[in-house]
Amino acid sequence: MSVKLTILGSSGALPAYGRFPTSQYLNIQNRHMLIDSGEGVQMQLNRYQIPIHKIDHIFISHLHGDHYLGLMGLLFSMHLQRRTTDLHLYSQKGLDDIILLQLKYSKSILNFNIVYHAYDPTEKKLIHEDDVLTVHTIPLNHKLECAGFLFREKTKPRKINKEKLSNGMLLQHIALLKSGGDVYDENNNLLYRNSEYTLPPRTSFAYAFCSDTAWNEKMVDQIREVDLLYHEATFMEEEKDKAMETKHSTAAQAAAMAKQSGVGKLLIGHFSARYRDLEPMLQEAREVFSNTDLALEGTTFELNA
Amino acid sequence: MSVKLTILGSSGALPAYGRFPTSQYLNIQNRHMLIDSGEGVQMQLNRYQIPIHKIDHIFISHLHGDHYLGLMGLLFSMHLQRRTTDLHLYSQKGLDDIILLQLKYSKSILNFNIVYHAYDPTEKKLIHEDDVLTVHTIPLNHKLECAGFLFREKTKPRKINKEKLSNGMLLQHIALLKSGGDVYDENNNLLYRNSEYTLPPRTSFAYAFCSDTAWNEKMVDQIREVDLLYHEATFMEEEKDKAMETKHSTAAQAAAMAKQSGVGKLLIGHFSARYRDLEPMLQEAREVFSNTDLALEGTTFELNA
Repeated sequence: MSVKLTILGSSGALPAYGRFPTSQYLNIQNRHMLIDSGEGVQMQLNRYQIPIHKIDHIFISHLHGDHYLGLMGLLFSMHLQRRTTDLHLYSQKGLDDIILLQLKYSKSILNFNIVYHAYDPTEKKLIHEDDVLTVHTIPLNHKLECAGFLFREKTKPRKINKEKLSNGMLLQHIALLKSGGDVYDENNNLLYRNSEYTLPPRTSFAYAFCSDTAWNEKMVDQIREVDLLYHEATFMEEEKDKAMETKHSTAAQAAAMAKQSGVGKLLIGHFSARYRDLEPMLQEAREVFSNTDLALEGTTFELNA
Repeated sequence: MSVKLTILGSSGALPAYGRFPTSQYLNIQNRHMLIDSGEGVQMQLNRYQIPIHKIDHIFISHLHGDHYLGLMGLLFSMHLQRRTTDLHLYSQKGLDDIILLQLKYSKSILNFNIVYHAYDPTEKKLIHEDDVLTVHTIPLNHKLECAGFLFREKTKPRKINKEKLSNGMLLQHIALLKSGGDVYDENNNLLYRNSEYTLPPRTSFAYAFCSDTAWNEKMVDQIREVDLLYHEATFMEEEKDKAMETKHSTAAQAAAMAKQSGVGKLLIGHFSARYRDLEPMLQEAREVFSNTDLALEGTTFELNA
């Protein structure tokens, strides 16, 4: 599996009808990441059989409780499961103080290091990079300073065309072909022309997670044409004034953002407790942007290639 | 209903198999109380249809995360539901700092006051009293300083024998009879002899909540003959050494405490994640003290009188 996103929580600040506050699990080429960590995130990871010890990167969008209150329990559980590898935590300043104070009062010393990456939510910044992906912050427009995250796969190596593989081909020849080069022998004679032996890679995947925000035109350029956009939709259009007042979005606004940014698919979530039935909300979004789904608990998006 | 206890979480520190960390809802004559507030407590209150706005008293046994990490989410939800009445919080020193720091970073000011009652967990102390009940701390024996709580109904008024009520009886006569007095007329002639017009009240109810603790002989006198004892049972007897090392109890020890204290009924909980099937644990306890049940999520104890 190349990419898998699992929604762990779909609720706004006040959990209702069995919905949990925001958190999502994202796996890109075996990089196991968590985005936000609302209360109950460890129970939800258990429920969807995602091993918590594999998670190495946690991205927290902002310090409203419904986006981080499950983190501390998760850290304690990682400790109890005898984790020793570093955990990378990306957050605004403040969460470090909150963690340290709670460790102090429980007289706990974790078995593992938390590598704390404090970011400025007002800037578009690269906050993580490894061999296969980059993660940038997306400045949002909320009551409390808040950032979304843009996860983008790097250009993937070309794929060897297995039908063309021959027995005499050396491993270093295959590696060179994958990286895009032609292969020459010691006398500089062409052995394998790249275009004959390889196929283009799968298009690199991009996911934009846009946590709590009011309509935010500034992010259009940054999220343009991503494969998948998660955008909050706390309210329906009939509560547009309430959305504006609380700096949240309506389902129609989330869909308009998806349309304007030309994304592939939209997931909406962070639903207000006033909506038991979410079908009207989905319909409202689909009228603007048809390829929309609800980001309900257990919803997954997978890309196998 | 006079007394109702609902178990909201039965898990030890590492939640597993859908079990939640410790919290319990206790209603004594419409005093709505919460005992511990493990992660997910607000979702569990929703699940069992207990209205969170009714809860006026929260007792926290100690500052290990699995006993309080759901509190902050509950406070935010009370705020979002526009609570304005005081909330009484009983805890060791420290939880106040933890709450204030999280309010600071979320730039939140709650609509209601938290009246913080800091207690010393090493002493048997009265920490709450009203017309119908008292609450005392029970010093426990755990790695982190920890207290249980003893909830005891006050002596209840005598009940009017409805078969003896006559039309001419004045409201103040009935009140006097209920309080245990005889009723005389202005010339000091006996009108109603109490023993003829009233029945004895239901026996006052007592509940001892004994959160995380190793075997703790010191509490026997304090909890003697309570109607209901909740005692943690993190391990089975085969893990007795592990229980001792981590300052927890086995099911057999919890039952021995129930037997030695002569309680009416025992509930065991705080189960380690190593036990998926809890039936052997229940059998272990019942061999020592037969009137034992598992304190599973949704388990209720009711007294209607």
